[in-house]
Amino acid sequence: MRLSRYFLPILKENPREAEIVSHRLMLRAGMIRQQAAGSFSWLPLGKRVLDKVCRIIREEQNRAGALEILMPTIQSADLWRESGRYDDYGDEMLRIKDRNKRDMLFGPTNEEMVTEIFRSYVKTYKDLPLNLYHIQWKFRDERRPRFGVMRSREFLMKDAYSFDIDYEGARAAYNRMFVSYLRTFTRMGLQAIPMRADTGPIGGDLSHEFIILAETGESQVYCAREFLSLPVPGEDTDFSNDGEVASIVKEWTTPYAATDEMHDEAAWNAVPAGDQLSARGIEVGHIFHFGEKYSKPMEAKVAGPDGKDHYVSMGSYGIGPSRLIAAIIEASHDENGIIWPEAVAPFQAGVINMKVGDAECDRVSEEIYAALEAAGVEVLYDDTDQRSGGKFATADLIGLPWQIIVGPRGVAAGEVEIKNRRTGERETLSIPAAIARFGKA
Amino acid sequence: MRLSRYFLPILKENPREAEIVSHRLMLRAGMIRQQAAGSFSWLPLGKRVLDKVCRIIREEQNRAGALEILMPTIQSADLWRESGRYDDYGDEMLRIKDRNKRDMLFGPTNEEMVTEIFRSYVKTYKDLPLNLYHIQWKFRDERRPRFGVMRSREFLMKDAYSFDIDYEGARAAYNRMFVSYLRTFTRMGLQAIPMRADTGPIGGDLSHEFIILAETGESQVYCAREFLSLPVPGEDTDFSNDGEVASIVKEWTTPYAATDEMHDEAAWNAVPAGDQLSARGIEVGHIFHFGEKYSKPMEAKVAGPDGKDHYVSMGSYGIGPSRLIAAIIEASHDENGIIWPEAVAPFQAGVINMKVGDAECDRVSEEIYAALEAAGVEVLYDDTDQRSGGKFATADLIGLPWQIIVGPRGVAAGEVEIKNRRTGERETLSIPAAIARFGKA
Repeated sequence: MRLSRYFLPILKENPREAEIVSHRLMLRAGMIRQQAAGSFSWLPLGKRVLDKVCRIIREEQNRAGALEILMPTIQSADLWRESGRYDDYGDEMLRIKDRNKRDMLFGPTNEEMVTEIFRSYVKTYKDLPLNLYHIQWKFRDERRPRFGVMRSREFLMKDAYSFDIDYEGARAAYNRMFVSYLRTFTRMGLQAIPMRADTGPIGGDLSHEFIILAETGESQVYCAREFLSLPVPGEDTDFSNDGEVASIVKEWTTPYAATDEMHDEAAWNAVPAGDQLSARGIEVGHIFHFGEKYSKPMEAKVAGPDGKDHYVSMGSYGIGPSRLIAAIIEASHDENGIIWPEAVAPFQAGVINMKVGDAECDRVSEEIYAALEAAGVEVLYDDTDQRSGGKFATADLIGLPWQIIVGPRGVAAGEVEIKNRRTGERETLSIPAAIARFGKA
Repeated sequence: MRLSRYFLPILKENPREAEIVSHRLMLRAGMIRQQAAGSFSWLPLGKRVLDKVCRIIREEQNRAGALEILMPTIQSADLWRESGRYDDYGDEMLRIKDRNKRDMLFGPTNEEMVTEIFRSYVKTYKDLPLNLYHIQWKFRDERRPRFGVMRSREFLMKDAYSFDIDYEGARAAYNRMFVSYLRTFTRMGLQAIPMRADTGPIGGDLSHEFIILAETGESQVYCAREFLSLPVPGEDTDFSNDGEVASIVKEWTTPYAATDEMHDEAAWNAVPAGDQLSARGIEVGHIFHFGEKYSKPMEAKVAGPDGKDHYVSMGSYGIGPSRLIAAIIEASHDENGIIWPEAVAPFQAGVINMKVGDAECDRVSEEIYAALEAAGVEVLYDDTDQRSGGKFATADLIGLPWQIIVGPRGVAAGEVEIKNRRTGERETLSIPAAIARFGKA
C-alpha cells in the first residue's frame, strides 16, 4: 500500500478525552474514530489489525473443533423471557421496539439464541459434542463507557457455546477451549495467564479468565513466575484426545494464579518469594461452564444412550477482539507509539523513502516495494512528500515491526537501513540482501 | 471437514413459509435459520458461502482502490438531523433510545457517518480521490419482510462511498466502481448486466443497477443479447487509468439494457428482434452518484488547487452479500438443490463414502480426504452411517461442485467415481488420478 493513496489520519496532539495509553495511541495512529459515547469506527489501519486478530481467533477455534456460525445482532425479547433474563438484565440491555411495537433488543450475548438453534435441530447425543461460535457485534449500554475500545458500548465479541450430554463431556469441551485460548493469545505475541474466576451460583471450578500482564493493566493479579516459561501447546495438539488436552489444562492450572477478587493470601504465601509475580493485568478472555442454566428453562435436551432425554450441559467462551487490540497496545508500546507483535501488525514492514523526488531514492524504494509485495509481504510504502523526521515518527507511532529506510547517501552506496521497531536496532544491508530478508518471510 | 463432526441440519420437507426457491433451498440445506421476522442466523454451511462472497467483494473493492473501514451499527440521531434524513426516513428506520434517553438508530445506510469521518480529517484536494467502504450489518424495518435473506430486515451490506473534488473526479470514481462490480459478479459465476437506474432529483446518468438474469427473478428486464458475450475486464485492468476505465464503462453502457421502470419501447424496438433479450432479473448491486447531497448540509469541503473551499462530490456503491447469495441460488439450481458456482461453493468437493465400516471404502475415503485437505482443497467428507441414497441427495442439495464417490465395487478395482454437480456427468478414475485431479486445483 502506498501511503499517498491510503487513509491514515495521524493526530499530532494527544487527544484530551483519552485517559489510557491504548486509547490515546489508537486515536493518534488513526486506527479508530469515536462516533458516539462508547462507539467507534475502525479506520483502515485499525481494520487491518482487527482482521488479523479475528483470523487467529478463528483458526484456533476451528482447530479445537468449534464451528463458525453468525447470529443476528437484533434479537427477540421473547427468547430472553424464556430464560428469565429479559427482566433481570437491567439497563445495560439496549431494548428496542420495532414498527409493530414488538419488543426486540440488541444482543449483549447469545446464550438464548444459540440454545434455540440447538434445540431446533439436535435431538440425540450422537450429534454431540457440538461447539458453535460466532464473531459478531454486541451492545451493552454501559453507564460510563470509557477507555476507548477497552470499554465501549458497541464491541466485537467471539462467543462460543458448547453442548454436551453430561458434565464429563462439558468438561472436555471446556478443556479444548482452554487450550485453544492459550494458543490464540500466544500466537498474538501475548503472555496470557489463566486465572480461576468466580463461578457464583453455578459452582464448581470451571471458570477461568485469561489475563495478560501489562504495567498499565486495569487490575492487580498474582501468579507464580513459572507461568512465564510453561510450554504453550503446539499446532500438533490432538484436540480429539481428551486425556492429552486435560493434561495441558492441569499443567496450566496447577501453579498459583489469581485475580484480586479470587486472591488467597495463604496459598500465595506458600509460593516461594522469588517465584511470586505480583503485577497489573488485563482480562482478554473468559471461559465458563454453566451446565443446565439455559438448557433447562429452554428445554434443550437430547436422547442419551440410555434412551432417556437429558438436558444438555453447556459452557460459553468469550474473547473480545476489539478490546483485545487495546490490551495488546497496553502490553506493547513505548513513548514513541505502538509496538505490534508481528502476527497482528497492520503491515509487516514499512518502506520509508527519505527523499521523494530524488530519482535514485524513488527507484530503489519502488524496487523494494514491488519485490516485497510480490513476495506477499504486507508493506506500507511512505511515498509522501513529508520530511523524513515526520516519516520516522509516523512509522514508530503506528508500530510497523520493520522499517526499511531508503536515503540518498545509502542508495549511492547501494545500501538501505533496516530498523527493528521493538529493539530499535538498525542494520545496513545491500538492496538485494534487504529484499531477500523479507522476501523469505 | 468430516460431516460426522459438522453441523448441517438438512430439512427433508419443504418449509411451508418459504415462497421462493432460494429461501426454500437455504432452509433445506441448513444454511440459515430464521430467528425473528426478517432476521436470520447463518449456520456453518451458509457462513462459509457468506465468507467467500465477502472475500471476492473485498478483493475487487481493494483492487479498484477503495479502502476498507468498519463503522458501528448503532448511530446517533443527531448525525441524521444534520442531513435532514432523520425525520424523512420513515418507519423503516429502527429508532432506539439508549439508557440516557438519547435518540439512536440502527444504521440502514452510512452516508451521514462516513461524511462525518471524511470532514473530520480531510481538508485538501491533495488527499483525494478517496473511497471508503465497509461490510456491516444494516437494519431496515420492512413492513413485510419475506423471501428469506432476499428481503430481510437485518442484512449484510457492502457500502462504499467516494469523495472527489469535482464532478469529473466523481465520475472517474463511479467508473472504477462500475468496473469493479463487473469483475465482482463475474468472479462469482454470475452474468450481471448494468442497467440505468432512476436518478430522481439528483439528475444525470450516473446511477446503475446490476441485474442478474434468473427465471425466478423478481422483475422484468430488457437488454441486448450482446451483453452475454461482452468481454469482462481482467485482473490487469489499470484502475489508475481513468481513460481505460471509462472506455470499459462505455462499452458496457452502449447496448440497450433497462429494467421495467426505465424501459423505453422506442429504443427497444430499435434493437434487432434476434438480439432482444427479455427476461426476469434480480438486482444485486447499485451504484449512484449523488454529488453534494450530503457534503453541502454536512459541510464536507476541501481546499482546491484554486485555494478555495469546495464541497466534495460523492457517490455510493452497494452490494448486499446476504441477498446476493439468495440471488445466486435463484440463478443456479435444479430440482435436486443448489448448484454453486465453484468460487462461492461452501466446499469445492465432497467425498462420499458409500459404505462406512467397510475397511477398503474407509481406507480409500480417508486417503482421498487427507490428500485433498493437504492440497488445500476444501472438502466435506461424508463419513456418516446414512444410506448412500441419502448421501447423494444431501450432496446434490447443498450443491458441492464435485462429488467423489467411493463405493465397494469401485475400490475393489482401484477406482472411484467423480460427479460434476452442474452437468451430472460422471467419470471413473483411478484413485491416484482422482487425487491428482483436485490436488492440482
